[in-house]
Amino acid sequence: MFKKILIANRGEIAMRILRTCKEMGIKTVAVYSTADKDSLHVRFADEAVCIGPPSSKDSYLSIPNIISAAEITNADAIHPGYGFLSENSNFSGICAKHNIKFIGASPEQIDRMGDKANAKSTMKEAGVPCVPGSDGLIKDFDDAITTAREVGYPVMIKATAGGGGKGMRAVWKEEDMRELWDSAIQEAIAAFGNGAMYMEKLIEEPRHIEIQIAGDQYGKACHLSERDCSVQRRNQKLTEETPSPFMTDELRERMGDAAVKAAEYIAYEGVGTVEFLVDKNRDFYFMEMNTRIQVEHPITEQVIDYDLIREQIMLAAGTAITGINHYPKLHSIECRINAEDPFNNFRPSPGKITELNIPGGHGIRVDTHVYSGYTIPSNYDSMIAKLITTAQTREEAIAKMKRALEEFYIEGIKTTIPFHRQLMEDPAYVEGNYTTKFMEDFEMDARYANQ
Amino acid sequence: MFKKILIANRGEIAMRILRTCKEMGIKTVAVYSTADKDSLHVRFADEAVCIGPPSSKDSYLSIPNIISAAEITNADAIHPGYGFLSENSNFSGICAKHNIKFIGASPEQIDRMGDKANAKSTMKEAGVPCVPGSDGLIKDFDDAITTAREVGYPVMIKATAGGGGKGMRAVWKEEDMRELWDSAIQEAIAAFGNGAMYMEKLIEEPRHIEIQIAGDQYGKACHLSERDCSVQRRNQKLTEETPSPFMTDELRERMGDAAVKAAEYIAYEGVGTVEFLVDKNRDFYFMEMNTRIQVEHPITEQVIDYDLIREQIMLAAGTAITGINHYPKLHSIECRINAEDPFNNFRPSPGKITELNIPGGHGIRVDTHVYSGYTIPSNYDSMIAKLITTAQTREEAIAKMKRALEEFYIEGIKTTIPFHRQLMEDPAYVEGNYTTKFMEDFEMDARYANQ
Repeated sequence: MFKKILIANRGEIAMRILRTCKEMGIKTVAVYSTADKDSLHVRFADEAVCIGPPSSKDSYLSIPNIISAAEITNADAIHPGYGFLSENSNFSGICAKHNIKFIGASPEQIDRMGDKANAKSTMKEAGVPCVPGSDGLIKDFDDAITTAREVGYPVMIKATAGGGGKGMRAVWKEEDMRELWDSAIQEAIAAFGNGAMYMEKLIEEPRHIEIQIAGDQYGKACHLSERDCSVQRRNQKLTEETPSPFMTDELRERMGDAAVKAAEYIAYEGVGTVEFLVDKNRDFYFMEMNTRIQVEHPITEQVIDYDLIREQIMLAAGTAITGINHYPKLHSIECRINAEDPFNNFRPSPGKITELNIPGGHGIRVDTHVYSGYTIPSNYDSMIAKLITTAQTREEAIAKMKRALEEFYIEGIKTTIPFHRQLMEDPAYVEGNYTTKFMEDFEMDARYANQ
Repeated sequence: MFKKILIANRGEIAMRILRTCKEMGIKTVAVYSTADKDSLHVRFADEAVCIGPPSSKDSYLSIPNIISAAEITNADAIHPGYGFLSENSNFSGICAKHNIKFIGASPEQIDRMGDKANAKSTMKEAGVPCVPGSDGLIKDFDDAITTAREVGYPVMIKATAGGGGKGMRAVWKEEDMRELWDSAIQEAIAAFGNGAMYMEKLIEEPRHIEIQIAGDQYGKACHLSERDCSVQRRNQKLTEETPSPFMTDELRERMGDAAVKAAEYIAYEGVGTVEFLVDKNRDFYFMEMNTRIQVEHPITEQVIDYDLIREQIMLAAGTAITGINHYPKLHSIECRINAEDPFNNFRPSPGKITELNIPGGHGIRVDTHVYSGYTIPSNYDSMIAKLITTAQTREEAIAKMKRALEEFYIEGIKTTIPFHRQLMEDPAYVEGNYTTKFMEDFEMDARYANQ
């Protein structure tokens, strides 16, 4: 087992990793930018090394500074957390060259999964379902008709130079293709000077459902069931839950099998997540793979009773897995508490926390790095806490979340607590009837402003 | 289901009950003495009624004040928590007369179990093993010899007027009886002017192991496994765990059966605890029954995944149980954090909390009513928080407790945190090799003073 792990991260995930290291009897090294000198992860680590100024690129993203910190403290492993260098194949490779175990995927695995086109073709080879579409560009209108027949309606035609929805059309039936094809090309030429188009199947009522997997160094993998992360705003997850309210035992088997197949095809080592889009017919399509621990991992821990950071460290140290899958025994929900103002377009709200009450009691878990008197720097991600509730049923987990949000008060800054309070009362959410489009017409209600 | 519950208690248990009520959609009424006006339970309840001055007898023990508070707020049930009026049959009866559901045992059940001699004879009738001994007083030396043969050596002879160990002798074999009998009588006469003696079997290496039970209004009961509460100082529990490190599957079956038999014999309604002494041979003896929720109930909740306060409210509302027993799936430990100075004979240390950091993360639960800036009144029990850790194994639960105690800092007052830190390193505790005698030769080590 490792003797000393350097944690190449900050905030709640640095605390999270540090806690498990302590519990495993492994010494810890915290690294921090000057903006984070008063952070709890610095206080609780066995050693702490300042790695630069507030700017991430000169501190948390500086490979030389982090490698130096590991060398001077004699750390034999580095845990990258999420974000920053966690999916940087160059960093993973440099760690290996310095004889420091990178607790994460190999450079080859990161490269294979990091590039979307590359990942998609690898997954196709592995037999994992991907969103059907054209192979590259569509030649002309006839090709569009042929491809759409192969893919099956509805389809999306998309400008290769596109962005912001421009040059993009949903086509529901063949009769409409002519008109939509022409107008999309015209729009693309007007907007980007380029009318080249490709085609993908349109995913109806898409849900973002991901499968947590774990793989050992001997080629074996297992899955730890799903997380539903469909409640997103501009691709940022706001809240997650497991089991997914849309899940069936049969779909979990199919998705779990696909995720294990994906992991074993690339001999994936460590914990990771295979993200899928699931449509209204419960067909699912590979989106991407995250080759690292995820923000929302605690809900999985809560329902299967395992410590995923411990498992991750054990796998990195060479432990073999049995290959037995894990299934949720309870229901768990996570709300990301961000220093953002939900009444002002979720604008970041850094500053000093002047008063703080953290909820507690039965079924409540809070992962945070903040305390009363802590100043949230403006340089980094705005997440300040993860509030996780766990109960026998989804209904009870929501009820627990409501009362925990009520107890949670943070003064001095704006937070997303009011958003989550409103969400927990939203009829569609309460019914579990939400897709990735959910936030598109969500509006904050002033009644939730008093928090 | 009840519409509004008055919580006739304070501190962490008031918060505990209030939280579950909120989760169940039941309105809450807090009551408080003037010393508790700034308590969290007052802040979070739907309504709060001041019931008197700091002195318990004029507030939390004042039946008229509490009944009045329930009547003016239209509460249809009262939850008494633990301590105060929770095992007061008079109060239970008065609630019934006022058409307010007392969430606890009936007056008859409380009376039957509240008097120790009464409880013991009831349990004998029910066929639950009790500590063998003389029927009342021993007539003379010959009677002592006969009784000791029946009970089996070793035995304790005890002065009926005794106390503080005076007039008490352990007798290990018949040859020693003459001398010890005479000296005990002489000592008793000298100390109390009364030489009357009774006899009980001496329990070797006694452990305090209790069984959590639940009974419905239809005569059915089940058990929810054990808690080991042997780490006690002057009969005050300091830390508890489940499963007991001394437990075997076979012993759990026998003790569980006995506890269910005890509950069903008196048609016990609600949640309760049957406390046993277990000797080194794993023979067990009924000690007493607590007809209420206990301080240490969370560790049971953690390992069986149920909310016991919810179950208690459901049972009071008339829900039937299946009679299926519950077994621990994990290991859980609770440390009672008291405002006491472990380096000064556990002397109470009330006062203002000037700084507070509550531990969090995976496997950590904290039940508390305090916050930074809160002043602990000197009028009540000194417990200020319960720190509970849960993990796959006992070893991991201890490791979690160590790191959580390290994160837990409370400034402005003295607490028992240093005691628990030392306990978690104590070789006998770590091996699970402790009895109710454990604290007799425990001494605080100055190395743990820095907290």
